[in-house]
Amino acid sequence: MSTPTSILASLRERPASLFGKDFLLTWDHSLDQLKLVLGLAETLRLMHQQGISARVFKSGLAVSNFRDNSTRTRFSFASASNLLGLAVQDLDEGKSQIAHGETVRETATMISFLTEVIGIRDDMFLGAGHTYMLEVAAALDESFGDGVLAQRPGIVNLQCDIDHPTQSMADLLWLEKTFGSLGNLRGKKIAMTWAYSPSYGKPLSVPQGIIGLMSRFGMKVALAHPKGYDLIPEVVQRAERQAQESGGSFTHTHSMEEAFEDADIVYPKSWASYSVMQKRTTLLQQNDREGLKELEKACLAENASHTNWECTASQMKRTKGGDALYMHCLPADITGVSCKQGEVEADVFEKYRIRTYHEAGRKPFIIAAMILANRAKDPIGVLEGLLKKNKPRVDI
Amino acid sequence: MSTPTSILASLRERPASLFGKDFLLTWDHSLDQLKLVLGLAETLRLMHQQGISARVFKSGLAVSNFRDNSTRTRFSFASASNLLGLAVQDLDEGKSQIAHGETVRETATMISFLTEVIGIRDDMFLGAGHTYMLEVAAALDESFGDGVLAQRPGIVNLQCDIDHPTQSMADLLWLEKTFGSLGNLRGKKIAMTWAYSPSYGKPLSVPQGIIGLMSRFGMKVALAHPKGYDLIPEVVQRAERQAQESGGSFTHTHSMEEAFEDADIVYPKSWASYSVMQKRTTLLQQNDREGLKELEKACLAENASHTNWECTASQMKRTKGGDALYMHCLPADITGVSCKQGEVEADVFEKYRIRTYHEAGRKPFIIAAMILANRAKDPIGVLEGLLKKNKPRVDI
Amino acid sequence: MSTPTSILASLRERPASLFGKDFLLTWDHSLDQLKLVLGLAETLRLMHQQGISARVFKSGLAVSNFRDNSTRTRFSFASASNLLGLAVQDLDEGKSQIAHGETVRETATMISFLTEVIGIRDDMFLGAGHTYMLEVAAALDESFGDGVLAQRPGIVNLQCDIDHPTQSMADLLWLEKTFGSLGNLRGKKIAMTWAYSPSYGKPLSVPQGIIGLMSRFGMKVALAHPKGYDLIPEVVQRAERQAQESGGSFTHTHSMEEAFEDADIVYPKSWASYSVMQKRTTLLQQNDREGLKELEKACLAENASHTNWECTASQMKRTKGGDALYMHCLPADITGVSCKQGEVEADVFEKYRIRTYHEAGRKPFIIAAMILANRAKDPIGVLEGLLKKNKPRVDI
Repeated sequence: MSTPTSILASLRERPASLFGKDFLLTWDHSLDQLKLVLGLAETLRLMHQQGISARVFKSGLAVSNFRDNSTRTRFSFASASNLLGLAVQDLDEGKSQIAHGETVRETATMISFLTEVIGIRDDMFLGAGHTYMLEVAAALDESFGDGVLAQRPGIVNLQCDIDHPTQSMADLLWLEKTFGSLGNLRGKKIAMTWAYSPSYGKPLSVPQGIIGLMSRFGMKVALAHPKGYDLIPEVVQRAERQAQESGGSFTHTHSMEEAFEDADIVYPKSWASYSVMQKRTTLLQQNDREGLKELEKACLAENASHTNWECTASQMKRTKGGDALYMHCLPADITGVSCKQGEVEADVFEKYRIRTYHEAGRKPFIIAAMILANRAKDPIGVLEGLLKKNKPRVDI
Repeated sequence: MSTPTSILASLRERPASLFGKDFLLTWDHSLDQLKLVLGLAETLRLMHQQGISARVFKSGLAVSNFRDNSTRTRFSFASASNLLGLAVQDLDEGKSQIAHGETVRETATMISFLTEVIGIRDDMFLGAGHTYMLEVAAALDESFGDGVLAQRPGIVNLQCDIDHPTQSMADLLWLEKTFGSLGNLRGKKIAMTWAYSPSYGKPLSVPQGIIGLMSRFGMKVALAHPKGYDLIPEVVQRAERQAQESGGSFTHTHSMEEAFEDADIVYPKSWASYSVMQKRTTLLQQNDREGLKELEKACLAENASHTNWECTASQMKRTKGGDALYMHCLPADITGVSCKQGEVEADVFEKYRIRTYHEAGRKPFIIAAMILANRAKDPIGVLEGLLKKNKPRVDI
Repeated sequence: MSTPTSILASLRERPASLFGKDFLLTWDHSLDQLKLVLGLAETLRLMHQQGISARVFKSGLAVSNFRDNSTRTRFSFASASNLLGLAVQDLDEGKSQIAHGETVRETATMISFLTEVIGIRDDMFLGAGHTYMLEVAAALDESFGDGVLAQRPGIVNLQCDIDHPTQSMADLLWLEKTFGSLGNLRGKKIAMTWAYSPSYGKPLSVPQGIIGLMSRFGMKVALAHPKGYDLIPEVVQRAERQAQESGGSFTHTHSMEEAFEDADIVYPKSWASYSVMQKRTTLLQQNDREGLKELEKACLAENASHTNWECTASQMKRTKGGDALYMHCLPADITGVSCKQGEVEADVFEKYRIRTYHEAGRKPFIIAAMILANRAKDPIGVLEGLLKKNKPRVDI
């Protein structure tokens, strides 16, 4: 059994640092850096279970900037920030003067004078979200360099157009738990597949994040989607390359059945296609409501010809022992529950429901680990110190 | 004079626990459990006055879920949470993905990984608010049972379709103060009456909460409203039964005059009728805007035939010594101040205005007491410990 | 070099107190009171830089009431509150029952039971913002006097129709830094000038705040604007009087060139005129959308005849050594950047951009100083105590 002490001890064996490093894309970071985040997150999770305080900040803001709706990630970020002692302050662009022609770099500085971390979700515009985060990062670098900011806040990507690292890392932590170790993931087959949903415009960041991360751990990554539902080509190429390098494999098909065949893990989820997202981005930028309506109509019609991409009991039978681990970032579109016809059959989802909650429950701690690793030169030492002090989180 | 120490000592004499118990309806709990909340609340109030810190949480979220507008209760919940060391995180359904077909039980879990308490206000749909809270409770039980949640957050009802326990308990604490003790309330007459307001659709939870609580303390509860402005029948029956059992009485008339006659306390307040709320609920669920407009029109017309249900100086003369205590949950519709014609004459309200503020000022501490009683096995011991430590809340 | 210790020591030499005093208008307070705020702010800024905790509240709310959009001031208030240990609770009138005919004095009390400070921004209606703050203040006085509130929250004006004291005081702290001391400001010329912007309805509070404050420090204050863009006459008269009394001067012209001539500091900024704001206030109160549209149209046309009021490189050449300090409260309307034609040329702004960020970076600490000075009988002693304890703000 892993204990906080044993996890931290094993982290000490492979020195890695994320001090002062933003967490924007998992592939920006080395395996040891990712393992650092996983280890810190699991330690924080166990400390929370055991009622040990992880409050390291006496004051400081955690700014959240959600440019898209969110419940899970919003609460995960708030929980993570609060666990460490930071107060969340939303940057709500509707309430601000940002719409009045303010530049990104100025706003980035204005919200950062006493800020430790900025969490950003910006996943609607292809080509925009990641770029925006880089702009914020550059602005913070400049203002810190010029002495305007006493500290340079870290940035955590809470979902962009390219990656969703807090999701994929939480997923990986859950896989580590489920399969016993990261090493045990070697050779395991994960099917990242498209699934039908009566909605359109869902971001590509989850499937891209999954293939971009899991391909680095020697897994057999099987990407499948109907024709026309492509992901960003560079990410797919990266996954392919990484799979080869890590001793895993990468297959890319247009068959859910093929992907599910003998899979240890399945991750069936709807997304819009790359080309649709491109068109949508252009239309959104042009504020072309008519065009958007037509695109939605066309896409829903296109989607509707792929309702057979559903995670059914009979599809699950193809998986390893008929019992692959089902994963989802939630909320899932559940046939007969949240929609008439969706990504997954109700019985299949219900079998795995609690496990998807466990999966989701890793996210607050992954985010807290990312914040801690960004702020502390020796985050392992920080947690060792907290464990030694053993202060109760609650005095009741 | 009651001191924190004497209050806690007297609580020790009648052991009661609310540990792990949601506070949804006052009648879910025994008299001793209610007295525990009152005693903890008064102790917390005195500690705050004396500048003694009541911070028991080093971290932890207090989630507020307001499905209806609120100032008082929102600030009371925020104040209570902050007093104990919890950070408030709003679950704003407009900003979330909840509208996208997510199930209640999933959301309940997703917001709870590091959450200590959830405060919910859901009072617009008859038959819905309390039911929703029970669904949330069941979901939390399941997720805690399955090990998804490290702790099972408590739920505090911040107003539902049936009861408004933080209001009625704050009112009771104020009555205890005003009349010297709960025992002194025996035989006192409280008139819970309808009053005219140029608005419609006000929830039934305040009058129901008042008759459902005060009837348990040997009071003479007089409910009065115009014909057709009925409350939920089960609650009225409960109040009747409870009054008998507690040695008080319960009368139900269609005469404000009768209710005010010789009353020690009057609580004149507008509400919609049970049948109107039923129709309204159906129309809201059907999103029938035309129907809602017509219903409003009809109700306002019906209301307008009862403008004589006003708390006037001459009505007040009927009360005990012409000087009954006037109560209101605020904001009151004050004739000539906040509306042309309303629930209460300006001079009457002005006479009691500061006292209604004192009444309202109990609510933050009632909520803090409910949270503390839910989280601590021995909340009395917790406060005894804080008093002993005697840490200043502010180091200035 | 000033250190926290030396700053606090020099503050001890000229005893002044703001204990229990609201900060609504800078001219409500003596020079020594203003210097107290400046000194506390600079100390807090240095403490933050040095990582020393300034947390003095274990609990307590800081209520923010923004009746107009804001990013900078919102974050400054949140940062200041958090630095001292207070939790921010927004009073969002859209989410509250305030629109339902509630009186100001009642709301003021309802949000204050556990509140230490209320920050208010209300700058849209001429004659309304400052008046509103006085009403809130009177209500708090009454409720505290009657024992309804255990403490009387302080009020900080986050911008009203008359003054913007957190801005002007942050500006002054920046000037003190830039010129070495407040004494060095004597005889320096500051040009507070109107500048063209393709928008209308900008509040008068910044120019009024600047001339109302800087005229007290022996500066040569030069106010300039096109004919018809007058400020509130009483404020202009006050600035004139104060300039005389402080040994400075005050000039009022309709020529940007004249104002810039030999200026040490320039503050070119757009505002609406007094008479436009009066008309606008009436139209807003009457909810006259047509009238507002017409007024906007007329004003934009009027504005457009003054596009030559731009802070250009050639205008800057007129200033002292061609190198006056450029100031702005941000966001500036930058020609070719945030608008086609605006207040300032892009190259001029870029030269001073980082310095305007430094200017803005003073605001959180000015607000924290105002809060601390309001709450603590001996705020200097509080900071001395914190410096002595020397607790790290972050335990990493």
